[in-house]
This record gives sequence, structure tokens and C-alpha cells, in this order.
Amino acid sequence: MDGNSEVNIGLMGLGTVGGGVAAALSGNADAIRRKTGRTVRLRKALVRDTAKARQPVPPPGVLTTNPEDILNDPEIQIVVEMMGGDSPAGSYLERALTAGKHVVTANKEVMSRRGPALQSLAQSQGVNLLFEASAGGGIPIVGCLMSQLLANDIRSIRSIINGTTNYILTRMARSQTPFAEALIEAQDRGYAESDPTNDVEGIDAAYKLSVLGSLAFHQPIPHHVIHTEGISRLAPEDFRYAAELGYAIKSLAIAVAEPDGSVQARVHPALVPDDHLLAKVDGVYNAVEVTGDLCGQIILHGQGAGRDATTSAVMGDILNILRTIDNDAGPPPMPGIAGADDPEGLLLPIDELSSAYYLRLTCADQAGVLAQIARILGDGNISIATVIQKDTDPGSGTAQLVITTYPSRESDVQTALAAVAELGVVVSVNNLIRIEQ
Amino acid sequence: MDGNSEVNIGLMGLGTVGGGVAAALSGNADAIRRKTGRTVRLRKALVRDTAKARQPVPPPGVLTTNPEDILNDPEIQIVVEMMGGDSPAGSYLERALTAGKHVVTANKEVMSRRGPALQSLAQSQGVNLLFEASAGGGIPIVGCLMSQLLANDIRSIRSIINGTTNYILTRMARSQTPFAEALIEAQDRGYAESDPTNDVEGIDAAYKLSVLGSLAFHQPIPHHVIHTEGISRLAPEDFRYAAELGYAIKSLAIAVAEPDGSVQARVHPALVPDDHLLAKVDGVYNAVEVTGDLCGQIILHGQGAGRDATTSAVMGDILNILRTIDNDAGPPPMPGIAGADDPEGLLLPIDELSSAYYLRLTCADQAGVLAQIARILGDGNISIATVIQKDTDPGSGTAQLVITTYPSRESDVQTALAAVAELGVVVSVNNLIRIEQ
Repeated sequence: MDGNSEVNIGLMGLGTVGGGVAAALSGNADAIRRKTGRTVRLRKALVRDTAKARQPVPPPGVLTTNPEDILNDPEIQIVVEMMGGDSPAGSYLERALTAGKHVVTANKEVMSRRGPALQSLAQSQGVNLLFEASAGGGIPIVGCLMSQLLANDIRSIRSIINGTTNYILTRMARSQTPFAEALIEAQDRGYAESDPTNDVEGIDAAYKLSVLGSLAFHQPIPHHVIHTEGISRLAPEDFRYAAELGYAIKSLAIAVAEPDGSVQARVHPALVPDDHLLAKVDGVYNAVEVTGDLCGQIILHGQGAGRDATTSAVMGDILNILRTIDNDAGPPPMPGIAGADDPEGLLLPIDELSSAYYLRLTCADQAGVLAQIARILGDGNISIATVIQKDTDPGSGTAQLVITTYPSRESDVQTALAAVAELGVVVSVNNLIRIEQ
Repeated sequence: MDGNSEVNIGLMGLGTVGGGVAAALSGNADAIRRKTGRTVRLRKALVRDTAKARQPVPPPGVLTTNPEDILNDPEIQIVVEMMGGDSPAGSYLERALTAGKHVVTANKEVMSRRGPALQSLAQSQGVNLLFEASAGGGIPIVGCLMSQLLANDIRSIRSIINGTTNYILTRMARSQTPFAEALIEAQDRGYAESDPTNDVEGIDAAYKLSVLGSLAFHQPIPHHVIHTEGISRLAPEDFRYAAELGYAIKSLAIAVAEPDGSVQARVHPALVPDDHLLAKVDGVYNAVEVTGDLCGQIILHGQGAGRDATTSAVMGDILNILRTIDNDAGPPPMPGIAGADDPEGLLLPIDELSSAYYLRLTCADQAGVLAQIARILGDGNISIATVIQKDTDPGSGTAQLVITTYPSRESDVQTALAAVAELGVVVSVNNLIRIEQ
């Protein structure tokens, strides 16, 4: 084919991101031709409602409500899916690959649930399946794990990959805003959805961690085995005490390769030392720290969501397919599934985690309380690092006790904390937050 | 070919990085096979002295002092060059590409001086020329500009890409160490060479900026047209005054696409606001900030040099070639040279830069001095933002004057500063440092 022959694209989903991609395909046509030698044409776009007003106005005949117009059109060589959700998007992608079409997707849920199967299918069909936008938004982390960092034995990923929670935590830290208020603020600004569950409970981050962890460790990390905790239990005083101790509180998505070959994967709030770059990631920004045996610690920081940033990732995938689309040999083997034939790796249960902890308790304001608590912790093999006692509510007869521990086993800490909660002098166990060093 | 057929590699240079790559090729052979489906064999390594003791010990017959043993060996499919310097490495690479061999190079000088020509040659020969290690060490910025961020219209690159100078500046800022002392410290730790000119005068950074800028803006940015200033004029008091004003001092390599299509490219010390992530890049770490029309601001942070980090980049390139080496269609067109046929872009002379400035002067400690200086600046269309006057050397009759300006034209500032230097009350103009917002 000559370098100017047209490549037809079918879009599935024309919402915020889909609209951005459609605009970039038409608005940047010259730049695309210069960078790839190819001309792209948006042939069909699957939407729910063809009558809805759109900007830019799609050419006549492009909009359709029938997925078959894309899946059954042999002229369409690249399917770009931005519908979100597993159903029906997942089965559409399977059909597109089966029909020999290249696929670009921004769908973290599909890639988390069906990534290895879809990658195998793409491989056997000799087509590309690219998914840069499925984790980290505009941050080019997916491609880095698949390509530039491929030579590394990846040791760990620690990341802030949900902008909604990071915005809420930043507000809570800066203005001592309670969670519920910060959430409403995030909703007012369009950073949180009316049902914020997926974001604030860590489900969105778990999907993304599943995608990144599978690429990093060359084995499936199903999202449902990732230990996931949300941020709704955090109180303004946790941020105050953490700051006193030299930490910020961030919701981290963490995957670590243990020396025995098992992997721990978890999403939860964590104390991060103030001088670590992850502690300085503010607002809706995202960051991913990757540690490899050769590259050492690399941090990528940028916009994890939003129309333009996600369009950058989707369009990058499209351009990279355009650069090789005439290549009859098909795309290179996808390193992301090199280990998919391996037995599913041992995922380390959270009980077996070794971590330092921050504990906040409300206790009776009387002598001997700390001694009783310290005895239980000591009996449980938990060494105390620091204690802060605060008479926060004078006259109430209670005090806040903030304890940090040296690295201990999670199950020991949970058992000891249950025993502490039974003490007569303990009014409530308010929080347990893991500390990342 | 079957997936386990051997690919022969020839290394040129077996120093620090070359030794790391040789060790990775042998030590990680199983992982390479798993990730690429290919077996690699180090067939020849070009060295100066075959008798020198090396760890690991190369297999018999591998070492050679004759480059023809690599360039003329049809069995060698990939040449990996880690000799450094333009001559003879540049002509070796040209010959390797002409012979149809894939090339991986860590050589910033060759890529800066001959990058576009070598890329065209690789293109016409249908082979890869990859150079991730030539800028940013272990930070995967080269690949990001060529691939993941390709859809973006890149607006600017601002980077800390010389670890030696960043180490020295970090020491000067933290301990008020004079430049000469901090340099000796860097040399003692192996971070600076015995002749530190290339690093401290910004030449190394200019080569790397040339590589990154050419990729980002799709036009050659020859290193010799990059305005380059070193760090040796910085004094401990500059760091003190900068800190008072809320800034760190970093040596930045900057390339900016101007709205008129011209590019400004420069390497010099700059004041960076304390709350910007670039201000927090410490010691030998590097960071690159890329701003694109879609991705917004992305920052990549990591190790910019050193054996392991550079090996990560070189091995990543090798693995990516291994993944496609059977592909008869050849590599995709290199977007880095898409604009090489364009007329050479206008490089904006430093005189036409618009920037805010930090100025430090030593003046007579008497009334009316500031008025004289302010008049000259005002006549030159330069608005003063802040003034700090310090009687740093009581009894000397002189005072230090630190002035920051609002954005002004560089040529206006240089002209005004020359006039200020002529004033009888001005003992010396100690420093001019640009301020990056």
C-alpha cells in the first residue's frame, strides 16, 4: 500500500473521551499523516443516541447505534473502544479481534477481567491490542512496562492512580475538611461521580493495578484478589497526626514481587514520608513509582484522567498501530502475557503482609491505659515506634492515642487490635493505616 | 525461524555500561528468552585491551580489538555501541547500518551530531536504530517521545539531565558549600570526572537536549546552536537568596516550541519555584518534564546515569529489537525524523528570550544606589519584582543587592546590566540567573 492510503477507524463510545478522540482524528489529520505516513478516516462511531448534539459535528452517516456496523465492516481496520464497563464492551472487543481488527481500548475493567485472554487472541490473530489509557490516563506507564522497562525484573509498583481520591485526600490534608464535605466538593467540580463508590472504595484503582501488575510481573493479577480498602474512614485528625509524624496520607495501589515469587497486591490508604515524591502528588494528579533490578526507582507523574490526557494515550496507541499496519508479520509478541501459561502466581494474602502501622484509638483519659495496650501489642510481637497522646476533648474523660509500630505481621496486628478493642478503657479503635517507607 | 533460534550480538565498548550489558545478556538469558522468544549470544566485544581482567569473564574468543570482527561478521545481527564520543563510534554505526545490522547506541554525542542522518540510513536499510540510553539514562523518555506521546504536539521540555551538576547544586544548596569544594566532593564519589568540563559547562546536557528536542519537535536541534551556560559562577549566597525568594537553583535543559514555529533551546542554571517537582530532584537523580497539547504536563524522574540504569535502557532496546527481528517488513518509520525534510527550524537566539531574571550585584553601601540602578532598568523596559539588600560584609562599605524582574527581553536585560556595571557605585555584577515559573 502506498503511504497515503486511508485507514478506517470505528469508535465505540463517543462520550467525553470518545469525543476527544474523534476531534483529534479530524483536527490533527495532517499531523497524523506526517507522523505515520497514513491517512485516517472515522468511518463509524457507536453511540446510544444519534440525535444528541455533538461538537465537532460528525460527518453524515458516521453515527450508528448498531455495533454490527463496526464489527461486521471489513473496511474498518482499527476498533477503538471507549464505552467502559465489561458488558457489552468485552464481547465487542473479542469479536473485533476475532475478525482480525486491531483494537485500542481505554477500558480498565475489560483489561483487568479479560486482558490475558484478549491478548492471547490478538496474538493468534496477528493484530495489535493496545491499552495505554486503561491505567494512568495520560501517564505513559503501560507502554513503559511493555517496552522501555521490559529488560527489568520489576520488584514493585507503588502508585496513586485514582485522581478522585487523591483530590479528596489533598483537600482533607490542606483544610482539615471532613471526608463527606471533601467528597461533595469533588462532585461539584466534576472530579467525582454521583455514585462515587468505584473511586472512593478503591475499586477503580484495583482494576488499574490489576492491569499494571499483570504487565510488570508477567502473570495475571485478577482484580478480585487485590486487597482493597477505601478512604471513607479517614478523619481530619489522621492527617494532623500523620503530619506531626512527618507523613502524608495517600491512597496507594501497591504490587510487590516477594523473594519467593509470590506477589502482594493491595489498594489502601497509607502514610507516606513527607520527603517522598509520592507525598507531593496533589489534587487530581497521578503518579506511578516502578522499581526494577536495573532501572532502580522511576517515577512517572501526570494527569491520570480527563478528556485530553486520556485522548493522548488512546491516540498514541492509534498512531503506533498506523506505523505498522502494513506490516504483514503482525505485531511483536506481547510481553505482558509471556507468563500467562505459568501457573497462576501465588497472591500473598494481606494477613501475611509485613508493614509498619499507624493506629488511632480513643481511650479513657486515665493512668495505666497505655500500659495495658502496650502489653497486648508486646505479647503480639508488635514493637511500638512512637506514641502520641492527645487530650483533644477536654472534660470528656477521653483522649486520643496515636501509636506507630515497627514492621509487624498484619495478622498479628489485627489480632492484637481486636484484643485492644475489648479493653474496658478503650472507647474505640478509630483507624489502622499502613505506613509505606 | 523458530522462536528459539539464536541472535548474535556484537558489543562495541566493554567499560562500565558495556560490562553491565554483557552481564545482563548472559545472566538474564532465561528471562530474555521468556520475554522475547529469542536466545541471544554475545559473539564479539570490541575492547582496547583484551588482557584486562573482567567480571564476568567473557567466553574465549569473544574479545577483540578489531572493529572489523563485528562490522564484517554477517552472523552479527545487532550491534550495541557503548564506546562514547563521535569518533570512531559514529562511523562504526554508519557502517553497521549500511551492512544491514540493527543498532542500539547509548551515544548522545553521535545521536546529537548525526542522529537524523543515521535515522534516515536505518530507515532505508529497514533496520532499527534505537538510542534510549543516549538521554536520561534509565528514565524511559526517548521511547515515550517516539511512541506513547507521539500523538501530542509537544510544547516544551524542561529537564534536569546531568546528574553531576545536580549533585553539585544539591550540595551547594544544602550545606552552603562553594562550587569548587562541591566539585571535588563529586569527583571523590565518582560522580564527576577528573576533567569535569563536559558536565559542569552544560555540554553533556546540550547533547542530550539535542536528542530529546529533535524527537519532540520533529526537526534537528543541533547541539552547537543550543545556548549553554555552566554552573561554576554560582555562589553559596545565590542559593541563600533564592531560598529566601522561594526558589531552588537547578541547571535546566529547556526546549520550547514558540507559537511562530521557532524553537528556543538552552542549558543554564535557573531559579525553580520550591513547590515545583523539578525543585525537589536531588543528588544525581534526573527528571524530564514534557508538556504536550493533549497529555498536559508529564514528569519522569529516575536515575540518569550509572551502570545499572543505563543497562536497563540499552537492554530494553535490545529486547524490543529481538521481539521484531524476524519481521521482514522492517521497523516502523521513525517519527523522530518525520520533519527532517523540513527546512531547518528557526532556532530562537537567546537574545530574543523572554524571561524573568534574578540579578545579584555588589554595590557601594550608600543612599541612592538603588535609584540609579532602578532608573537604568526602567529605561530598558525592565520591571523590578523584588529587591533584597544585604549588608553582608559590615565595614567593607559594600552591600549585596538582589533584584528579581518581571518577564523581560534577554537583550534588554543584558544591555541594561552592562550599563549598570559601568556605574561608579557598582562594584561588580555577580550573577544573572533566569527564573522559570
